[in-house]
Amino acid sequence: MALGGSGIEQAAGRVVAIGGAERARADGSPILRRFVELTGGARARLVVVATASTDPEPVEIEYVEVLTRLGAGTVRALRLESRQQANSDATVEALSDATGVFFTGGDQTRIANVLGGTRVDSVLHTRLGAGAITVAGTSAGAAMMSGTMIIDSGEDGGISAHSVRTGPGMEFLPGVLIDMHFAERHRLDRLLSAVALYPHELGLGIDEDTAIVAEGGRFEVIGSGAVTVIDAGCANTIRTAEYDGKPLAMIGVCLHVMPAGYTFDLHGRCPSITATPDDDREVA
Amino acid sequence: MALGGSGIEQAAGRVVAIGGAERARADGSPILRRFVELTGGARARLVVVATASTDPEPVEIEYVEVLTRLGAGTVRALRLESRQQANSDATVEALSDATGVFFTGGDQTRIANVLGGTRVDSVLHTRLGAGAITVAGTSAGAAMMSGTMIIDSGEDGGISAHSVRTGPGMEFLPGVLIDMHFAERHRLDRLLSAVALYPHELGLGIDEDTAIVAEGGRFEVIGSGAVTVIDAGCANTIRTAEYDGKPLAMIGVCLHVMPAGYTFDLHGRCPSITATPDDDREVA
Repeated sequence: MALGGSGIEQAAGRVVAIGGAERARADGSPILRRFVELTGGARARLVVVATASTDPEPVEIEYVEVLTRLGAGTVRALRLESRQQANSDATVEALSDATGVFFTGGDQTRIANVLGGTRVDSVLHTRLGAGAITVAGTSAGAAMMSGTMIIDSGEDGGISAHSVRTGPGMEFLPGVLIDMHFAERHRLDRLLSAVALYPHELGLGIDEDTAIVAEGGRFEVIGSGAVTVIDAGCANTIRTAEYDGKPLAMIGVCLHVMPAGYTFDLHGRCPSITATPDDDREVA
Repeated sequence: MALGGSGIEQAAGRVVAIGGAERARADGSPILRRFVELTGGARARLVVVATASTDPEPVEIEYVEVLTRLGAGTVRALRLESRQQANSDATVEALSDATGVFFTGGDQTRIANVLGGTRVDSVLHTRLGAGAITVAGTSAGAAMMSGTMIIDSGEDGGISAHSVRTGPGMEFLPGVLIDMHFAERHRLDRLLSAVALYPHELGLGIDEDTAIVAEGGRFEVIGSGAVTVIDAGCANTIRTAEYDGKPLAMIGVCLHVMPAGYTFDLHGRCPSITATPDDDREVA
């Protein structure tokens, strides 16, 4: 659940949230390669969790193979299909010395339902807060990282309180609302609707083959697409009374579309550029 | 074409731009009723132009019937299918004493192609500037009113320079980019992309059964949906170099979602509320 306010205080650890469909290149997937580097490269001890999938085995095999090929020291799959498994000594032991955990795609509610509040949840938060582990995920494995989690689209389209369904997420990156496959599935309406409902949360829409690397209250954008930030903090009026049949109102929302090279200060709610683009034009 | 800057100086006349699908109610379509009232009610002399449609006759019959039923003094259809017709003495004469003209839906490029630069174009602008006529339109008839006109979606989705096609509009409401069927057809990505390409223009996304009534550098929102305003004026960085294969970047765009009861100052780029909502909550 959301911590309220900016909620960023707890996000000390390093989180990699990928918008799905991270592509392999001639030199391997740059995003997954970055994950392997961040977790220790040849000394990395990685755990793949495919809980989001109803058919985890082929997904586990694929990611173990890819991460191994990218040079990770050891990679193993950890099958977590029940809360009993997520509370077992064996599972806690399996995560006790991991330098990275990777959540695959599927259905984010499965992750929250199976892992939320379990010993796995506690161990990951403790090790994340201590800087001992990097928590990464793609697609559903990214969506579940926020405090309030976007579950699905609602019955309506457009910008409307009915166009998004939300629930409690895993809080690996509190203070935000993460949506993924963002450009590809036209989810700007949905994320804006979610931010109208939870204006204290910062909306992050992550394109496919694109990721945020978050650490110490900042995140960096990597990959081939962009991250769209929706900040309703500065909005003076937000009305979400559409449940009474009235249209939603939002006045003064701030929006950023940030490709690779941009970083974002989650505390100050402020973007900055790390790489100099060669073709910016300033607008008065 | 766009006038550059805010370009609002020429928008002295009264313009009604409807997002399409204006609904009839028990008491008739409230938006069309407003148009009839604005143009003189029982003294209104209205002209319906169905140039956007390839099959204008049924559309003409429908709107003549509806506007007449709503109490307009006289309503006639003016068939304009060629530039010859749009330059004829008879056509100019037909518009010389009209208090309102209504452009129906269809394809906005047909309106621009048939009417752009003709004597009809000149007469309408002259009478609009003099406050003698109200220019209204729905769907394509609204889209064509801006200086730079959104023609169609591009080949890409998402927020991208390739996700929208634009061309010269009729400039009845310069300084803006109008998109319609906005919530219903999920066009926020498209409008944001158009504003990235033309950041001096204010993006207006008009929902179905919703309209703006613009006059004297302000517009009012009426109808059952909302108008989404995208203002890139305050954005410090806009990069649209996606044609070089790089993702688009926009930093600091301002966005408003305004249902009925809101007005917007086109000069100051500032929304205000005319009706007091009973359920606003202020966000710090």
